[in-house]
Amino acid sequence: MPDTHPPRDIPATLLAQLRAIVGERGLLTDPTDTAPYAEDWRHLYRGRTPAVVRPADVAELAAVMRACAAAGVPVVPQGGNTSMVGGAVPAEDGSEIVVSLARMHRIRDVDAVDLTLTIEAGATLKAAQNAAAEAGCLLPLSIGSEGTAQVGGILATNAGGNNTVRYGNARDMVLGLEVVLPDGQVWNGLRRLRKDNTGYCLRQLFVGAEGTLGIIAAAVLKLVPRPRETEVALCAVPSPEAALQLFTRFQGHDPAAVQAFEYMSGMGMSFVLKHIPGASLPLAAPAAHYALVELATPRPNAGLRAAMEQVLEGALEAGIVADAVIAESDGQRAALWRLREEHSEAQKREGASVKNDVSVPVSKVPELIRRASEACARLMPGIRVVPFGHMGDGNIHFNLEQPVDMDAAAFLARDHEIMDTVCVVVRDLGGSFSAEHGVGKLKPYMMPEWRGGAELELMQRIKHAIDPGNLMNPGKVLP
Amino acid sequence: MPDTHPPRDIPATLLAQLRAIVGERGLLTDPTDTAPYAEDWRHLYRGRTPAVVRPADVAELAAVMRACAAAGVPVVPQGGNTSMVGGAVPAEDGSEIVVSLARMHRIRDVDAVDLTLTIEAGATLKAAQNAAAEAGCLLPLSIGSEGTAQVGGILATNAGGNNTVRYGNARDMVLGLEVVLPDGQVWNGLRRLRKDNTGYCLRQLFVGAEGTLGIIAAAVLKLVPRPRETEVALCAVPSPEAALQLFTRFQGHDPAAVQAFEYMSGMGMSFVLKHIPGASLPLAAPAAHYALVELATPRPNAGLRAAMEQVLEGALEAGIVADAVIAESDGQRAALWRLREEHSEAQKREGASVKNDVSVPVSKVPELIRRASEACARLMPGIRVVPFGHMGDGNIHFNLEQPVDMDAAAFLARDHEIMDTVCVVVRDLGGSFSAEHGVGKLKPYMMPEWRGGAELELMQRIKHAIDPGNLMNPGKVLP
Repeated sequence: MPDTHPPRDIPATLLAQLRAIVGERGLLTDPTDTAPYAEDWRHLYRGRTPAVVRPADVAELAAVMRACAAAGVPVVPQGGNTSMVGGAVPAEDGSEIVVSLARMHRIRDVDAVDLTLTIEAGATLKAAQNAAAEAGCLLPLSIGSEGTAQVGGILATNAGGNNTVRYGNARDMVLGLEVVLPDGQVWNGLRRLRKDNTGYCLRQLFVGAEGTLGIIAAAVLKLVPRPRETEVALCAVPSPEAALQLFTRFQGHDPAAVQAFEYMSGMGMSFVLKHIPGASLPLAAPAAHYALVELATPRPNAGLRAAMEQVLEGALEAGIVADAVIAESDGQRAALWRLREEHSEAQKREGASVKNDVSVPVSKVPELIRRASEACARLMPGIRVVPFGHMGDGNIHFNLEQPVDMDAAAFLARDHEIMDTVCVVVRDLGGSFSAEHGVGKLKPYMMPEWRGGAELELMQRIKHAIDPGNLMNPGKVLP
Repeated sequence: MPDTHPPRDIPATLLAQLRAIVGERGLLTDPTDTAPYAEDWRHLYRGRTPAVVRPADVAELAAVMRACAAAGVPVVPQGGNTSMVGGAVPAEDGSEIVVSLARMHRIRDVDAVDLTLTIEAGATLKAAQNAAAEAGCLLPLSIGSEGTAQVGGILATNAGGNNTVRYGNARDMVLGLEVVLPDGQVWNGLRRLRKDNTGYCLRQLFVGAEGTLGIIAAAVLKLVPRPRETEVALCAVPSPEAALQLFTRFQGHDPAAVQAFEYMSGMGMSFVLKHIPGASLPLAAPAAHYALVELATPRPNAGLRAAMEQVLEGALEAGIVADAVIAESDGQRAALWRLREEHSEAQKREGASVKNDVSVPVSKVPELIRRASEACARLMPGIRVVPFGHMGDGNIHFNLEQPVDMDAAAFLARDHEIMDTVCVVVRDLGGSFSAEHGVGKLKPYMMPEWRGGAELELMQRIKHAIDPGNLMNPGKVLP
C-alpha cells in the first residue's frame, strides 16, 4: 500500500512552486492518484512519490526542472510507463518526483516531402503512427505496447521491435530533439536536416539514455512512404540454421522488402496453440522450428506475392523449408502474426518463466539457440526452452519455462542462475545482455561486467558532466 | 617553408619515448618528411609539427596517447588528410604532434550474413568498398576523395556524399567502434549487434567529433547487398521546384531504389562544358536547371529501366521535365556522373569562387536556391550563382563565381560577406552552415551563433569530461 504521508524530505515550498507552474490539474499529490505512477505495469517494481507533475508544454517542463534542480530533488521522467525493466519507477523511499509527459502530446508538424514528423514526447506511438499514415507515410516502428508507450519513452529507451531488420531502432528514426536539461535549460535541436555536421551528435546521447541525462520534450522523426503491398508467410523449418538460411535468401533477393523475420520454437508454438483461444496452426503438422516473414514495399505493382512464392519454392526444394503458408487476406496476416505475438501471454499461462532479452550477431543466432538450450537443460533437467523473436536483427527473447512438475516459486528462485547460464553463451558469441528492453532498474548491476573499464568510465563521466547533481532518474542504467 | 628547428616546447624525452613505441619507421621528425602532414590538401592551412607518429596497431596507438597525455602534448589525428575545413592540420606554432593512422589499415573481418565489415581506421574508403565488394556486398558510402580518405577520418567527420538520400551518412553505417581515449585507455566497442541497449550510445559521440574526443582505431560498418541493376538519367528541368517534384515522384514510386538525386544549375553545367575536356551535353539544348538521378537495386529482374522510363514519361507529360536521357552503358553512366563531379574543377578554371556547404530541409531546397541567388545578386551585381549538389538530402553546395570582369582577389576579399548573405537565407529556412564537410578549423567561429546556448554548453561539458586537458585536436570544432 502506498504511504499516506508525503515523505518529509520533499520541501513543501517545492510543491507550492510546482503547483504554481503547472496548476492544480497538472499536479497530483493524493496517494491514490500518485500510486499508479509509482508502480510499473508488470507489478515488478513499486516505488513511492510525493508528487506527479504533469506539465502542459515545454515551458512548464523547463520551469519544473529548474524548481526541482534548485531544491535538489531528483525527478523520474515517465511516458506510458511500459518499461520492461522498471525504468520509469521512482525510488521506494519517496524521495523522487515523477514528471509525466502525458499532457504534452501535440503533433507539431507532418511533412510528406521531407518525410518528417515533429511530435511531442507524450504522444503515444500509436498516435504518431496515425499522424504519419494520415499524410500517406509510415513511421516504421512498431512494438506490442504502442497504444500506451509514448514517443518520449520510445526514444529514451531506443525501442526496437519487429521492423529493426529493415528500418533500424528508434535511434535510427531521430533527426532532431528538444530536450530539457537537468538544470532546466532547453536545448532546441528540432532540426529536420538529413545532413548537419556542426559539432557533437547530442541527440544520439539522449536517445537510449533512459531519462538519466535530461527529458526529451519533442522530436523530429523520419518517415518512409507507406507500403502498397504486404505479404506474410509462416514456415516450418527443420532447424534454426535453416531459418537463418531462409533469412539470407530473402535478404539476398530483395532486402528492402524484408519488413520482419521472426523465429519461433516448436515449444513456444505449442504453448500458443494450447492456451490462446482461436489460435490454430495453418500447416499440415507441427514442427520443431518456425519462421515468420513479412515482406512489404511501397512500389506499385511490385509482384511481392510472386517474389514470396519464388523464394519459398527455392527453399522448399533445398530442404530449408519443410512446409509454408502465405496469408491470403488481412485477417490471415493478422492471425499469423498473432501466433508470434501471443508467445508471452501463452508462456505466462503455461507457468512460471524466466526471460532474457539478448542479442548476438545475426549469423550466431542458431549457435545461441543450440548452445544456450543445451546449457539450460544441463542446469535444470526438464526445463523448457522457449526462444523466439527477431532473428533478422539477432535479438532473441531466450525465455525459459519451468519444468512441468516443478514448483513455480522454486523455479523462480533460480532465475539468476538461469539468466547467468544464458548470458555465458551470449557473451561468448559477442552478444548483449539487453537487446531492446534497456537497463532500467533491473540490470545496472550487470554493467560493470559487460561494459566495464573505459566504456563505463566514459558513461559515468558524461553523466556527471550533464547531470552533476545526479537528479535525473537516479539508480537507472548506471550502477 | 617549414621551420627546420624542432620547436622547443616538445620535450626530447617524449620524442624518445615515441621512437621506442613505434620504432624508427613509425616516427617522422625530419621537416621534409613532416611538412606534407602539416598542410591540408587544398593548401589553405599550413601548420608545423615536430613529429608525425605512425603507430602500426592499436596497442602502439594507445601507448603513443599515454605518452603524449603524460607529457601534456596535444595530438592531431590524421587520416587521408582530405578535410575541406582544415580538420587535420596541426597548429602553426609547432606545439602539436600529428598521429597518422595510415599504417593501421587491416581488414579484420567481412561477414556477408551479418552484413558487416570490421576494418581499421587507416584503410582508405576505397579499400573498404573493395573488401565489401569481394564479399558480394556494398559499403554504401561514396565521396570524391574515396581513394585517399581513410575510414577513421570518414567516421570522425561523418562523411556524406551522393548516397545519403538512400543510406544516410557515415554515422548511419556504424555498428561498433574501437577508440583510443585522450588518456590512452582503449574502448573496445567493436560490437556487431543490430540491437544493444546497454547504456549511452558512445559510438555516435565519436562519429562526427572530428578527433576532438579520441582517436577512432577501428570500426564495424554495416553493409548492404550489392546492386544488380543500375540506371542513371540526366534531366533538363524548368525550375528547382520542378526538380523537387521529380524527386518526390521517384521517392513515391520506389524509394529504396533512389540511390542519388542531384541538382545542377545551367551556369554550373556551362562551366563544365566549357572547361572539362571531353564533356558534352547529351540533350537537345542547354537548360537552366538539371537533375541527375541514379536508381539501383539488388532485386533480380527488377525492371529498373522500365521504372525509370515510366517516372520520366509521367514527368515529361506533366511538364516537370523538359528533356531527359537515360544512360545505355557503364560508359554513359560515368559520363553523366562526370558532368556533376567536375563542377568543382570547372568552377576553379572559370575563376575565383566562394563555397558554401549548406543544408536545408529537402522541401526548402528550391526556396534556398531562389532566395540565396537573389540575395547574392543584390550584394554583388554580376556575381555568378552556381548551386549544385545533393537535392535528395537537402545539401546544396551553394557556390558563387566571381563576376566576369572582376579581379579575383577583390572578389575573394568579400568572401565572408558572401557567405553571410547565403547563411542568412539558410538560417531562415532552418538549415545548417555545415552539411557534410564539418567544422574543422574553418568554422568554429560560427558555432556560438548557430549552436550557442544550451547546445554549445553541452558540447563543451562533454569535451571537458572526456578530454579535460584539451589535448585532442585543439582548436577544431569548438570555439
